[in-house]
Amino acid sequence: MQCDSQSKVMKFLNEVAEEFPAAISLAAGRPTDRYAERLGPLQLQEAQIRYGEYLTLQKDLDGAQARLLQYGRTAGMINDLVARQVKTDERVNACSSRTLITSGCQEALALCLPALCPDQEDVVLVCNPTYAGATGAAQANRIAVYPIPNTAANIVENIEQAAIQVRRRGQRPRALYLIPDFDNPTGRVLEESERANILEVCSQNRVVVLEDNPYGMFRYEGKPVLPLAAMDPSGCVIHLSTFSKTIAPALRVGAIILPEVLFGQTKEHQKLQQELIQRKSLLSVNTSQINQAIVGGILLKQGGSLQQWISPLLAGYRDNRDCMLGELQTAFADVLDQISWNAPEGGFFLALNLPFAFTIQDAMECATHYGVIVMPMNLFALDSSQEQRVRLSFSSVDRTQIPVAIRSLAQYAAMRMERCALAS
Amino acid sequence: MQCDSQSKVMKFLNEVAEEFPAAISLAAGRPTDRYAERLGPLQLQEAQIRYGEYLTLQKDLDGAQARLLQYGRTAGMINDLVARQVKTDERVNACSSRTLITSGCQEALALCLPALCPDQEDVVLVCNPTYAGATGAAQANRIAVYPIPNTAANIVENIEQAAIQVRRRGQRPRALYLIPDFDNPTGRVLEESERANILEVCSQNRVVVLEDNPYGMFRYEGKPVLPLAAMDPSGCVIHLSTFSKTIAPALRVGAIILPEVLFGQTKEHQKLQQELIQRKSLLSVNTSQINQAIVGGILLKQGGSLQQWISPLLAGYRDNRDCMLGELQTAFADVLDQISWNAPEGGFFLALNLPFAFTIQDAMECATHYGVIVMPMNLFALDSSQEQRVRLSFSSVDRTQIPVAIRSLAQYAAMRMERCALAS
Repeated sequence: MQCDSQSKVMKFLNEVAEEFPAAISLAAGRPTDRYAERLGPLQLQEAQIRYGEYLTLQKDLDGAQARLLQYGRTAGMINDLVARQVKTDERVNACSSRTLITSGCQEALALCLPALCPDQEDVVLVCNPTYAGATGAAQANRIAVYPIPNTAANIVENIEQAAIQVRRRGQRPRALYLIPDFDNPTGRVLEESERANILEVCSQNRVVVLEDNPYGMFRYEGKPVLPLAAMDPSGCVIHLSTFSKTIAPALRVGAIILPEVLFGQTKEHQKLQQELIQRKSLLSVNTSQINQAIVGGILLKQGGSLQQWISPLLAGYRDNRDCMLGELQTAFADVLDQISWNAPEGGFFLALNLPFAFTIQDAMECATHYGVIVMPMNLFALDSSQEQRVRLSFSSVDRTQIPVAIRSLAQYAAMRMERCALAS
Repeated sequence: MQCDSQSKVMKFLNEVAEEFPAAISLAAGRPTDRYAERLGPLQLQEAQIRYGEYLTLQKDLDGAQARLLQYGRTAGMINDLVARQVKTDERVNACSSRTLITSGCQEALALCLPALCPDQEDVVLVCNPTYAGATGAAQANRIAVYPIPNTAANIVENIEQAAIQVRRRGQRPRALYLIPDFDNPTGRVLEESERANILEVCSQNRVVVLEDNPYGMFRYEGKPVLPLAAMDPSGCVIHLSTFSKTIAPALRVGAIILPEVLFGQTKEHQKLQQELIQRKSLLSVNTSQINQAIVGGILLKQGGSLQQWISPLLAGYRDNRDCMLGELQTAFADVLDQISWNAPEGGFFLALNLPFAFTIQDAMECATHYGVIVMPMNLFALDSSQEQRVRLSFSSVDRTQIPVAIRSLAQYAAMRMERCALAS
């Protein structure tokens, strides 16, 4: 199986924190635990009841409860509510008939990638570094990936060049996987003009953009930029949404929003949708109605938008980010010529640039002797370009632990830099 | 995509009942709705709380509730409880470390088939007819399938012959997909001696048996036969379990139980398990902890076995089956030389043999004009051998409707036989 890199990431994420229980983890890209009290068993029950009542009222159905426990529609049950939420909160022109409910966004990738790249010569373009679950899903389906430098600068030219290079090899660029907002793992955001240009170049090249947007609603300051799917005249964007960050990862509920027009052709989405539904019936039959009902009930309670629902979380994430940025500034004050980082206006991550290589082994050493776990950026990369970078996650760590974690990381870096100086 | 047959089945199952709401459906292979009151939102909540308390007690964990809402272990969280249930109720030598929790049994197939058949020349042997989700999963992964006549008679010889034929073509038989108990779609059960011989021939040929056992606990009379995994000395059986029939389909919780010894080699299962976990991380990240907690809570409440839990369901299914068998005997009394059926000692289905072809179009005609929906066996077949057969499901239909449904089916059959007589 060709997904070693992805499996290393998963293994590292899952096991290193268990292996070093005393260390502070800045590795996991998970949402905070602090709001779990809003979703105890009682609240889960309330949401299910609310959705059951809605179902009964809307469709005049007997046995709504039985329906929630049975096999269900492969395409999903809460498509109308999810389309409304995506339209309201992300300004994407979503509608129920073009929405497919998935078992988390990972299933969306496992469905879309092989559907878009059925032939051996089909290639998916990916940023480098990028979310390892996307490259892993491609590789598990034996789909070739082609890396594009993951920087906002020149991204359009880089996509265009990649398309040319891929064609020159006798292959076909079919899709571009992209996290435009607060990218995982880099925190990078694409400006509106860049997005417009990406749409143009992808439309010209008939490359479908798979827009993954888990962090778009997690903006702590600055002006929001529209998702590509909301500014897509020719129809080349498939928008992926998830409730893992807004409500809870354990729900495993996400969605695929297809464009009404696909490369200028209306109703073309129907063929693709049928193929995705066929594939889904063979992966998961349908997404759990119990979990769909929880999402549906919360969406009903919140009047169709999750803006209010996440606002207490936003404050916590912003505080964590600010705390981390302040501590970085203090801890690395003397080495600002050698160590740098970005300050994303949202999301869960930032990227730290170091003057030395940082591998899994280094991460283990750092966890063992300095008590802090961070993610080598290398784990998200398709080449060696990311060896001196680290992903720092500020989303799930307790804020009071951030100062200690960053100071420990700085001590580790000082040791490494001293080691380098001695060696040279 | 090479899964047209499966998609036809899914489409037919999902849509025909909606299209003919007035018709009685003997088509759906779903469990009864009658017991939904035992699993209302309150009971789901109770189960989650119970499991949360168990988690807290067992592992002395803070924040069990947060844990139930987060990302979780890819291999699952309730592996110990599921292994105990499978051991108690199915007598399979399951243990936690060889158990992988899946998002329903369909995901188990989507994981196991490509892991067992990684190379182009690898072939999975399947009964013909068989569950379309298995052949569909194989075909979606571009794995060749080879049909074996789905009759208990000569099954061992047929498997042996299939292995020889596959090798002769330059291919490799790597797996055998099998539902030994109350097979879907035929209701067929394999005797203990047949199972022992299958194990022997599969072990000799290094063919892994994928034993799918959704109906094994639904025996209404007669002596239970051990699952193949419980009588597997050399270790060639991967046992698939599901809670869709015992608790609720909407949970989407199933399990893969690996053998301790794989073709005589101890610990060989670990390599396969790692591969399955890698693949799962790329399909669904992890199975919803909310749903795992519901299953876990019910298993705890029931003391580790689901025998008592399903016993009221068993009585209802048996009554339905008896009612259907009685009505068939009455309705087809005059044509017993031309129409026959089996009387399985358990499960959800029986197979009806007709003297005329029964296609999807015929099923539509029967639904439209005779008010009864049944499944053409052809939809589960890999060739034309099943054209004169029908699958009748007695699991989810209301018992009071069975007499009308069977009489209507008999009227339809009489019309068809008259039509044949006129034509000849």
